[in-house]
Order: sequence, then C-alpha cells, then structure tokens
Amino acid sequence: MRLRLRLEYDGGGFRGWAAQPGLRTVEGSLGAALDRVFPSWSRLAVAGRTDTGVHALGQVASVDVDGGPAVERAAEALNAALPGDLAVVAADEVSTDFHARHSARSRSYRYRIFTRPTRSPFERGRSLWRLRPLDEKALAAAARLLPGEHDFRAFTPSQTEHADFLRTIESAAWQRRGEALELEITAGSFLRHMVRTLVGTMLEREPAELERLLGGRPRSEAGTTAPPEGLYLVRVDY
Amino acid sequence: MRLRLRLEYDGGGFRGWAAQPGLRTVEGSLGAALDRVFPSWSRLAVAGRTDTGVHALGQVASVDVDGGPAVERAAEALNAALPGDLAVVAADEVSTDFHARHSARSRSYRYRIFTRPTRSPFERGRSLWRLRPLDEKALAAAARLLPGEHDFRAFTPSQTEHADFLRTIESAAWQRRGEALELEITAGSFLRHMVRTLVGTMLEREPAELERLLGGRPRSEAGTTAPPEGLYLVRVDY
Repeated sequence: MRLRLRLEYDGGGFRGWAAQPGLRTVEGSLGAALDRVFPSWSRLAVAGRTDTGVHALGQVASVDVDGGPAVERAAEALNAALPGDLAVVAADEVSTDFHARHSARSRSYRYRIFTRPTRSPFERGRSLWRLRPLDEKALAAAARLLPGEHDFRAFTPSQTEHADFLRTIESAAWQRRGEALELEITAGSFLRHMVRTLVGTMLEREPAELERLLGGRPRSEAGTTAPPEGLYLVRVDY
Repeated sequence: MRLRLRLEYDGGGFRGWAAQPGLRTVEGSLGAALDRVFPSWSRLAVAGRTDTGVHALGQVASVDVDGGPAVERAAEALNAALPGDLAVVAADEVSTDFHARHSARSRSYRYRIFTRPTRSPFERGRSLWRLRPLDEKALAAAARLLPGEHDFRAFTPSQTEHADFLRTIESAAWQRRGEALELEITAGSFLRHMVRTLVGTMLEREPAELERLLGGRPRSEAGTTAPPEGLYLVRVDY
C-alpha cells in the first residue's frame, strides 16, 4: 500500500532532507524508522527537498510499504521509532498514482523574523532575529510585487542544476504575529534558496530594486541569502 | 547602582536557578556574564528559584553593580556575554530598597500541556504532551477550587525546608490556546514543586479529591509531580 505521510521537523539538527552517507538527514532518519516498522518499503518521495537547517510544519512524503501496522497505527508506530525532532503528524493510504513530489500543485513557505529589541531563548534556531526596526511598509510593498510569473535567476546560486528560472508566485504577504513578522509565500515550485534570497533582498533593498531583479538578473545583483532557521515549509497542496 | 533584570530562559539546559559547583545553572551563567560586563557586582537575588528544567518568561533578578555600561546598554552588554538559552529582556535602575525576592508581591506560573494526537518537534522540552483527551470540564472545575488560602503540604515533597504550608492562591484557570491547554496560576508565593504536583493531581484525580487534599494531607495522598518542561515562570508583580 502507498502511504502519504505528513511530517513535522525542527531542521536545526538535520543536514537537510536528502540522504547523504555519514550525515544526519531527514530522509535518512525517516528511512531508519521505516526499516524498523515495515518489513519492506520503497519509492520514498518528498514534496520539498528542504536544505540544512530548514524546518517543516507540513512536509509531505509518499512511500510504498509492505506488511507492518495497519494504516491507522502507522503514525504512532513510526513516531515511536523516530527521534524527537522529527514526527509523523498523519499517515493515510493513497492510490498508487499519488506521488508526493510530482502530484503536488503548490508549496507554501513561511519566513519568520523575530523583531523584539532583545533576543529570546525560545526563538533560538526558529527565526531570524533582527535588532533594527523593520520598514514594514516597504516589506509589504515588496511582497506585493511577487505574485505572477518572473525570472528568479537572481535568487538562486549561480552554480545551479535548474534549467528554467521562471516560476509563478501565487501569493506573498507579510503578516505580523505578536513580536514576529512572517512572510507567507505560495508557488507551484521554488528554485533552491529562492525564498531565503528573496527575504534577504527584501530586507536590504528598496521595492523598486526588487522589481528590477525579478526580470532575470545575475545572482550577484541580489541581496544575501537569509539564514535557514527562519524558514518553514508549512503546506503542500495537491 | 542596583539593577532590576527581567530574564527569559529555556530551562532544559540548566540545573535550575541556584548556583552549584560544577553544574550549569541560571545563577551561575548569569554570574559569569556579570563578571565579564561589570568590574564588580554583589547581592544577586531572584524572585523565583526555579527547579531543573523549569522555564522562565518573566523571571526577575536584582543585583548591585559598579562601573561597566550605562543602564541603557546593560541588557545588550549582558546578552552578548550570555549563552543563547538565557537572555536579559530588560534592565533598569531601581532604588536600593528593591529586592527581587523580598519585594515581590506575587508570582505567576503557567503549565503548558500539548494535546495533539501526535507529538510535535516544536513542543519538545516546552510542554507536557498528553496523548489521551483531557477532561477539560473537570480541569476547569478543579482550578476553580484553588483560589483562597489552603494547606498545600500534600503538594510538596515530604522532606522539606518549608515550615509553613499555608499559601494563598490569587487566581487559577485553564486556558485553551490552539492545540495547547495552559494553567495560569498566581499566588504570593508557592511551595517547592507545588504547581507541578497540583497539575499532576488535577490530571489524575476528580475535583472532589483535590478539594480534600487542600485541607493539609500527607504528600503520599496527592498525585504525581508533572514534569518540569511544561512549567514557566511568566510574571512577577511588585
């Protein structure tokens, strides 16, 4: 049977999603739990291959399993075998034409900035802390430029495996939540580092400059890549 | 000059407040930062001597300092010298008759229970996770019994340094916050382990049984002591 797993993880302890020999990764840790819970499994796929340090609140994986617990007990059984910084929030059976990556229509990310004058132990590793007051009006204006199709080559490393730099942003907006300011952004797919480099550029540049960069400029013209600890994969829609 | 410091800490990495040789404690870490920032300091006092693993969102300390930065820069200077799980949220000058412990009129604690069917990596070390549904009506009824003066000897270890077990609860109520249920409780002062043992007992016993235990019963008759990771010192009033 094919399972769809909804995953949460604190990315701080992982070298990203993709399994790498000798490194602690989300895929590697999930694979070890699948080994313990199911006699056999295959075709593990994921909606978003998150980078080192990036968190997930709504990552989606698909995997074919044989034997092992019934689907109603799968989440509990996997959680008992998973480390504390990785959890299966839900597991359900899906048809064999469902693929976590290929079937996904859109991904939604959040970038969290903690804006209090002093840092917080409870935000450590979970947000970018900015001491200086943020220009929330400029950030809102910058976010309004993003929806639609643009050439995002300025927002991904110049050494890249991407061949096509056009992406279509469905929505993008900053939300104030107490002492945090959060960018919520949805697109069919993203380039590597794209959300983090958009955030870094929004923090450093005027909206007019961002608009120019959306026309397909070299990476060197955009701003810095914001650190991974503020980034969350929050939802995948199918 | 005497400083009042408002402190936040993630208690998971500390063996409680009180300095102990060879152990990592909040008092010890704060003392090391004071050493680095001020040529001399003395009379460090604290409102609530939290136990191992207990968190603080609004701990208050007082300390006399000589030399070093101006009061406006004290929080920033101390934070630069403190570890990431301990922060000074605010520092201000107070008169020399202010004492963080003796001047405090009341302490407010929160006990956080995370109630989702599956655990969360982001709640790890920050709440008690309860798989089973909670009887929220019974918990609310139990909390309503607490305000007023009672003999709380059932809710503190039988080997104790306390001589007087009478305490007066000003307010106590459970609040639902999303997927969490939180007890907010305020009193002039608390016995050691008192909030955690009240929570453990509320989770295990009927309200009528709790009421009986408030009349001064041996520790053995009350419930278990809930784990420290759900407990936060949230506010001290003067």
